[in-house]
Amino acid sequence: MTEQLMTGDEARVRADDRAHVFHSWSAQAQIDPLPVAGGAGAEFWDYAGNRYLDFASQLVNLNLGHQHPDLVAAIERQAGRMATIQPSFANDVRGELARRIVDVAGAPFSKVFFTNGGADANENAVRMARLSTGRRKVMAMYRSYHGNTTTAISLTGDPRRWPNEPADGSVVHFFGPYLYRSPFYSQTPEEETERALAHLEQQIVLEGAATIAAIIIETVVGTNGVLVPPPGYLQGVRALCDKYGIVYIADEVMVGFGRTGEWFAFQGHDVVPDLITFAKGVNSGYVPLGGVVISDAIARVFDDRAFPGGLTYSGHPLACAPGIATFEVFERDGILARVKDLGERVVRPTLEGWLETHPSVGEIRGTGLFWAIELVKDRDTREGLVPFNASGADAAPMTALAAACKKAGLWPFIHFNRIHVAPPLVITEDELRRGLDIIDAALVVADGAAA
Amino acid sequence: MTEQLMTGDEARVRADDRAHVFHSWSAQAQIDPLPVAGGAGAEFWDYAGNRYLDFASQLVNLNLGHQHPDLVAAIERQAGRMATIQPSFANDVRGELARRIVDVAGAPFSKVFFTNGGADANENAVRMARLSTGRRKVMAMYRSYHGNTTTAISLTGDPRRWPNEPADGSVVHFFGPYLYRSPFYSQTPEEETERALAHLEQQIVLEGAATIAAIIIETVVGTNGVLVPPPGYLQGVRALCDKYGIVYIADEVMVGFGRTGEWFAFQGHDVVPDLITFAKGVNSGYVPLGGVVISDAIARVFDDRAFPGGLTYSGHPLACAPGIATFEVFERDGILARVKDLGERVVRPTLEGWLETHPSVGEIRGTGLFWAIELVKDRDTREGLVPFNASGADAAPMTALAAACKKAGLWPFIHFNRIHVAPPLVITEDELRRGLDIIDAALVVADGAAA
Ligand SMILES: Cc1ncc(COP(=O)(O)O)c(C=O)c1O
Ligand SMILES: Cc1ncc(COP(=O)(O)O)c(C=O)c1O
Repeated sequence: MTEQLMTGDEARVRADDRAHVFHSWSAQAQIDPLPVAGGAGAEFWDYAGNRYLDFASQLVNLNLGHQHPDLVAAIERQAGRMATIQPSFANDVRGELARRIVDVAGAPFSKVFFTNGGADANENAVRMARLSTGRRKVMAMYRSYHGNTTTAISLTGDPRRWPNEPADGSVVHFFGPYLYRSPFYSQTPEEETERALAHLEQQIVLEGAATIAAIIIETVVGTNGVLVPPPGYLQGVRALCDKYGIVYIADEVMVGFGRTGEWFAFQGHDVVPDLITFAKGVNSGYVPLGGVVISDAIARVFDDRAFPGGLTYSGHPLACAPGIATFEVFERDGILARVKDLGERVVRPTLEGWLETHPSVGEIRGTGLFWAIELVKDRDTREGLVPFNASGADAAPMTALAAACKKAGLWPFIHFNRIHVAPPLVITEDELRRGLDIIDAALVVADGAAA
Repeated sequence: MTEQLMTGDEARVRADDRAHVFHSWSAQAQIDPLPVAGGAGAEFWDYAGNRYLDFASQLVNLNLGHQHPDLVAAIERQAGRMATIQPSFANDVRGELARRIVDVAGAPFSKVFFTNGGADANENAVRMARLSTGRRKVMAMYRSYHGNTTTAISLTGDPRRWPNEPADGSVVHFFGPYLYRSPFYSQTPEEETERALAHLEQQIVLEGAATIAAIIIETVVGTNGVLVPPPGYLQGVRALCDKYGIVYIADEVMVGFGRTGEWFAFQGHDVVPDLITFAKGVNSGYVPLGGVVISDAIARVFDDRAFPGGLTYSGHPLACAPGIATFEVFERDGILARVKDLGERVVRPTLEGWLETHPSVGEIRGTGLFWAIELVKDRDTREGLVPFNASGADAAPMTALAAACKKAGLWPFIHFNRIHVAPPLVITEDELRRGLDIIDAALVVADGAAA
C-alpha cells in the first residue's frame, strides 16, 4: 500500500468544515474535527504528519483498512464501466454480490435487498417482518444501536433514542444478557442464559405474543459494549421465536463480514436468524451500502404481493463492486482465519494480562478483532469509571484516556466507561501489538482515576 | 463519451438477479428486470444492443447523464486518494462540497448535513424542525413522495404509504394546488393559489398551529405529477410559516441541481425555505448522497446542544467528489441555461402541440427538463386514462404506451395516467427531439384507449 497524496491545505479544510459541515451527534460549536490527510492499511494521518493506528476502523466499518488496493481498483473499474443504474434493472455486479452474500449466509437465505446503510437495512427488515407476520410490535434490546431513521432510532436501546421520542410507538425494549452487570443476579454464563431467556419469554407473554412481529438483536452488541452472548442464549431466542411465530432479525451491521472471524457473527453461535441486516464491512464502507439478507420463506411472501419499500440507490453498482472485491480478498488472504488467530493468540491474552496489572480494568470481553475493556472505579462495586452516558467534566477520565492514546499514535474507540479494540482486519501483528502497548500505557491514566 | 464495455453474460446476470436480488416496490415473481449492459450520455443499452433514450434519467437522478467523464474521473481520483473517512473528522472534499452547496443556496443557509439519500435527508430535516421548534407535528401534501424510512414514508402522500401505516403518527396531510383537478373548484391559477392557501391556513388552525413543527413540500411535486405551484403559492406558504412559527422544508430531492433550470427549484418562485433536502442531482447518483441544507438560525440551535442524529456515511468523500465535479460541469457547460432554453424552446411548444393532435392528452405542464403529459379518457370529464393507482389489467393502456416507447427506443417515466419527460440535462437537442417524436408516435396507443 502506497501512501496517499496529501493534497489540500489544512487551514482551508478546517475553515470549510467549521463554517459549512454539520456533524452527526454533536453540539456543533463544541467540536474541533481533525482534518485527516490520508490513510493506508491500519493507519491514517493528519496534515501535520501525525500517524494514528486506527483502533476504531473509523466507525468499525473499515474491515479491510484504509485504501485497500483491491477495493480501490474495483471502484475505479466499476466507475469506468457503469457507475450507477436504477434498482428495477438487472445488473451484473448487483446480482453477483447478492449471490455471494447468500452463499456465505447459507440456508435458508435466498435473496438480498440492498440499502444505503445500516439504518435503512433495519427499517426494511422490520417492514418485512411486520408484513409477513401481520403483526406490528418489535422487541429490541436495551444497550443496542440500530441506526438513526425513525424506526431504527426507536429500536435503539441507548441514549441516542431519547431526544427523538416518541417515534415508532410499536417498539418494546428488553434486557439482554450482560453477566458482568447481570440484570438477573446471575453468577455464571449458564445462569445468565437461562434467566435472560426466561425474562424474554415472560415479556413476550405479557406484551402478547400474537402482537410481536420481530425480535431484533445485534449478534454481538457493538457500540454498547461488545456484549458477546453467553452460550445458548441466541439458540434460546431462536426457539422462542419459533414457538411464538416471531421473526428473528440479526443486526450484523457492525459484526458481519469478519469482525468476529465469521462471515456473520451468528455463525459462531450455532443459530440461524430469519433476516440478517448488514452494512459497513460488506465493502468496508468505501461506498455507502447496506442490506437485508432474506430467508426464502420471507422472500416468498413478496413473490405475488408487492413489497412496499424501496430507495433510489438500492443495489448501487459502484457500491456492489468493492463488495465483490471484499469476498475475493477475504478468500485469497484468509481474513477470517487471521481474525480468529489474532484475536485468540494476541488480543485475548494481552487483555487478560491487564486484569492483573490495571486496577481500573473491571472486565475484558470479546471475540475475533472486537473487544471491550470495561473500566471501573472500584472492582468490587463495579462502579463505572465514569457514569452512564457521561459527558463534559463527568467524562474527564475517559477523555484523558483518549487523549493519551492519540498522543501516542492510536485512534481509540471510546464509549461511556469502555475502550474498544476494533482495528482493521488487515492490521499486521506488529501493528496490533504496538497498538495494544499504547493502550496498556494509556490505561495508567484510568488507573489514576480508579479507587 | 465512449461506449462502455459490454462485459458479463446476459443469462448469468438474469439468473443471479432472479434468484438473489430482491427489488424495490415489487411483487418479486411478477417482474422481469431488464439486464442493462451500459450507458453513455442520454442513452443506455441492453445486452442485445437495443438502445434506449433515457427519458427518466434512471429515477430522475442522472442529471449529468450516464458515464459523464468528469464525474467518473472525480470518482477515480478520489478513490485513489481517500475513499472514505468517518463523519467526525474534517475532510477536504466534504467541506468544499458543503461550501459550494451553501453558496448556490444563498442566504440564510450556512451548513449542510450530509446523508445517503433522500429519505434520510427528510428524516433529519424533520428532526431538526421538531427539535428547534419543540413541536412534533409535520404537515405534508397529498400527492407527494418523500422516501421509504418510517418518517419519510409517513410524509409521503401517495399509495406507497398505505401498507406501511401506522408509522410516524405525527404527520398530517393537506391538499396542495392542482388546478387541472382543483380540490378547491378554482378556475384560474390565482384562484387556486388563494384557495389552497386559505385551505392550508384553516388546517393549520384546526390542527393547532402551536403543535406544528414543519410543513414539507416538494417545490415541484415530482413522481406524483410534475405539479408546478401556481404563482404566489409558495410565497404564501412561507408567510403562513412565518406567521405561525413553522419550519418550511423544501424537498428538492428530485428537482434540485438543475432539473427546473435553477440550482434549487424554489429559486424560480421568489421564496426561501428554512431547510432544503437534496439527493439525486447533487452528484447524479453516481455515489449515494443526500443531505439537508440548513438555515443559519436552525444550525445555531445545535451550536451548544447536541444534534441527536447521525449515520456512518455522513459526508462520504467518494460521494462528495463527484458532487464537486457536478458544480464544475454545471458552470463550465452552462447547464442551467441550456435546461431553461431546451424546456421553453423545444419541450413546451412540442407538448402544447399534442393538446391539438392527441385526444388523450388532457393537460401538459412542467418547467425546465421536467414535464408531465396527463392522459385522459375524456377531455371534458377529465377522467384519467387509467384509474388512480391502477395496476394489472386496469393499467393496460399505460402499459401499452410504455411498451410502444421502449420498442421505439425510449425508456419512459410512467406513473398512473401520466408520462413524464425527464431526460438527462446533457441530452442533445437532436436526442431530445427524437425522444419527443417517439412519445408523439406512441401516444396513438393512448388515443386509441381514450373516448
Ligand atoms: C449494530 C448497528 N446497526 C445499525 C447501525 C446503523 O448503520 P448506519 O450508520 O449505516 O445507518 C450501526 C451503526 O453504527 C450499528 O453499529
Ligand atoms: C421528492 C423526493 N423526495 C425523497 C425521495 C427519496 O429519495 P431516496 O430514494 O434517495 O431515499 C425521492 C425519491 O424519488 C423523491 O423524489
